[in-house]
Amino acid sequence: MKSDLDHLMQERGIDAFVIIGTENDDTDRSYITNGAHASATVVKKYGHAPVLIVSGMEVDEAAKSGLQVYTFHNFKLPQIMKEHAGNRRAITREFYGNIFDEFEINGRLAFYGTGSVMQTWKRLNHIQQDFAGRIEIVEDEETDIFQVARRTKDADEITQLRESGAKTSQVLRATRDWLSTHRAAGDAVVNSDGQPLTIGDVKLFVRMRLMEAGMEDTEGMIFAQGRDAGVPHSRGEANTPLKVGQTIVFDLFPRPIGGGYYHDSTRTWCLGEASPEVEEAYRLVMHAFTQSMEALTVGQPTRELQELVCDIFESHGHPTPKSTPGTSVGYVHSLGHGVGLDIHEAPGIGNFTPSQVVFETGNVVSIEPGLYYPEKGWGIRVEDTVFIDESGHAQSMTDCPYDLVIPLTG
Amino acid sequence: MKSDLDHLMQERGIDAFVIIGTENDDTDRSYITNGAHASATVVKKYGHAPVLIVSGMEVDEAAKSGLQVYTFHNFKLPQIMKEHAGNRRAITREFYGNIFDEFEINGRLAFYGTGSVMQTWKRLNHIQQDFAGRIEIVEDEETDIFQVARRTKDADEITQLRESGAKTSQVLRATRDWLSTHRAAGDAVVNSDGQPLTIGDVKLFVRMRLMEAGMEDTEGMIFAQGRDAGVPHSRGEANTPLKVGQTIVFDLFPRPIGGGYYHDSTRTWCLGEASPEVEEAYRLVMHAFTQSMEALTVGQPTRELQELVCDIFESHGHPTPKSTPGTSVGYVHSLGHGVGLDIHEAPGIGNFTPSQVVFETGNVVSIEPGLYYPEKGWGIRVEDTVFIDESGHAQSMTDCPYDLVIPLTG
Repeated sequence: MKSDLDHLMQERGIDAFVIIGTENDDTDRSYITNGAHASATVVKKYGHAPVLIVSGMEVDEAAKSGLQVYTFHNFKLPQIMKEHAGNRRAITREFYGNIFDEFEINGRLAFYGTGSVMQTWKRLNHIQQDFAGRIEIVEDEETDIFQVARRTKDADEITQLRESGAKTSQVLRATRDWLSTHRAAGDAVVNSDGQPLTIGDVKLFVRMRLMEAGMEDTEGMIFAQGRDAGVPHSRGEANTPLKVGQTIVFDLFPRPIGGGYYHDSTRTWCLGEASPEVEEAYRLVMHAFTQSMEALTVGQPTRELQELVCDIFESHGHPTPKSTPGTSVGYVHSLGHGVGLDIHEAPGIGNFTPSQVVFETGNVVSIEPGLYYPEKGWGIRVEDTVFIDESGHAQSMTDCPYDLVIPLTG
Repeated sequence: MKSDLDHLMQERGIDAFVIIGTENDDTDRSYITNGAHASATVVKKYGHAPVLIVSGMEVDEAAKSGLQVYTFHNFKLPQIMKEHAGNRRAITREFYGNIFDEFEINGRLAFYGTGSVMQTWKRLNHIQQDFAGRIEIVEDEETDIFQVARRTKDADEITQLRESGAKTSQVLRATRDWLSTHRAAGDAVVNSDGQPLTIGDVKLFVRMRLMEAGMEDTEGMIFAQGRDAGVPHSRGEANTPLKVGQTIVFDLFPRPIGGGYYHDSTRTWCLGEASPEVEEAYRLVMHAFTQSMEALTVGQPTRELQELVCDIFESHGHPTPKSTPGTSVGYVHSLGHGVGLDIHEAPGIGNFTPSQVVFETGNVVSIEPGLYYPEKGWGIRVEDTVFIDESGHAQSMTDCPYDLVIPLTG
């Protein structure tokens, strides 16, 4: 939780950190600024509240964070830029020098944020050289302090995650109901005018419903059919007409418009009917899903849950990453991941997740087993976002039926 | 243009570059992959076509780039991850080692992409140490090779930019027409049911029209009124009711859904009527706008256009960054910036833009003079995205009337 940051800084010997002010969205910054939309430089010393440094234009927006806001002016940036026009290294040195002086920053300093790889490399190299003896740039651990803090959600975050879950579920159900109003014409799926329904039509419907719910699809939903459904990250082509009986993998993972907590959920549907082969595989995926929901307990290494699911699939003859690393048929991915301000965050639940990573109260994770056989023309995935509550068990935040077949009643 | 990359690499002594494969959207990667939505690692050696390295899941998507696609498997990543579980440094060393061997990469290597500042710092430090003697990590110039290549658009890019311009303009005009269907009730603006119109209502209308046009508002449009319009980057509060006669700054900068070329445009509107003070200031902003459009010529340092606009405003008694760096009243920002796969890209058109940066045929830039007096309760900005054509002159890609007052005819 956010309140763990000081403790984590102390544990890792971080005297202060800076989140570099870039135009890139950065969810660590959103986390610290309580969602304010400012491309602020954030400075936090151990034991002190974070402060924000923004351009004059962003003062009002930054103030929404509830944190103390400074402007570039306070650190003489306009004069520095004039004096050192075009010399980025000198500008960085003078600007950061003023910040370090004002807040008495010395010692082990960590830099976070999101930005250009090339700019980061140059800027931190220059700071390291130009402040040698005063500042030592920290290499944080593989799971950095933000990832650790963010992987357990506080009450306010859970409220926001539940809200995103309720809204996303409402859109899933509305999509299901709307698909059901169509009818079969041979193997085609058509609307009341007899027009074939395409994936593009469905995505437009979903985007409209999301917008009405105040949500946005920033990462590009998956609505993929048949062979495409068997390739887990194929998103589905807009001009593909839907067909009776094909598997459809619908993976929807929106966030509130403008930023906030994501929800991640997948349903697999067959319109009108499903083949016996798909029905059997679907039952197995649902079995893996319910088994992993039931087995999940606080203190358990997350990878054990992935291994449990691999064992279930392997006992039915499907390849998995446990015995066949890199397989592209059978069960081909991780069981899940943390969900929060990023759609993918800590903790991971995969075969290579270090065994020290265990489930904790306050985790919000996706649970998403699946089976994929593109050459057989099908793929299946079922996914809920779940919250690990105070009793230590998984509570789903996704509310949509798990039925495979959607009847065509139009 | 894209075809300049090899020439730029040679000029700067870059033997090869890597765009690091991260989950972050990166427009240099989009540029190289022709818009394919894959979180690919891109490897390009001087004189060779770029190649993509992706997970098995992303092969189909990556193939849309038209480039050669490799999977992690080809470089033994699954085995490496198993062998070095949890040791990211060793995984990076073995994985990159295999890539460097396969493509015979040695010498001066540049890293681009977008990613976590902390991860970038650690990863590049480790590569530098672990491949010492074989690889030297390049610090590219302040304006990196992608920024240089991308600042002149080729014919295909211009087509896409024109399309975004046409669609955005259509939404601007539709919003204007729809606002005009409202009526005044005292100083309130109300719909046919007598309900007050809020900024939230307008933003919802705009988002719906964008969606119908296949565009998305990824960066958060500005629709700000009165004092808020005087704070250039205040976005406008959803629950604010619109008032007759207040200035509204409407800055719309969407891109095609899922990614592509942005369009950037701003109109300032007063509903029903405008005060004489605002009308006079608006005429001056329009004068600065038309003067800068006319003065813009190929070969001219971009900062000269900013200085021209500063001079126009100063001659009428308004502070500008030329004589009052960091001013928050008067003209408070740069005249414009490049527009492309990023909403802000090269070239800059500001007081601190180095004088070597000149307008070139193929530039697509925003031209956006404005005046801001939050304490007087108003702000004004007018912005088109313009293309510098082969005759060397500015051609607007925005098509929406410049009238200040929108009559309330409801």
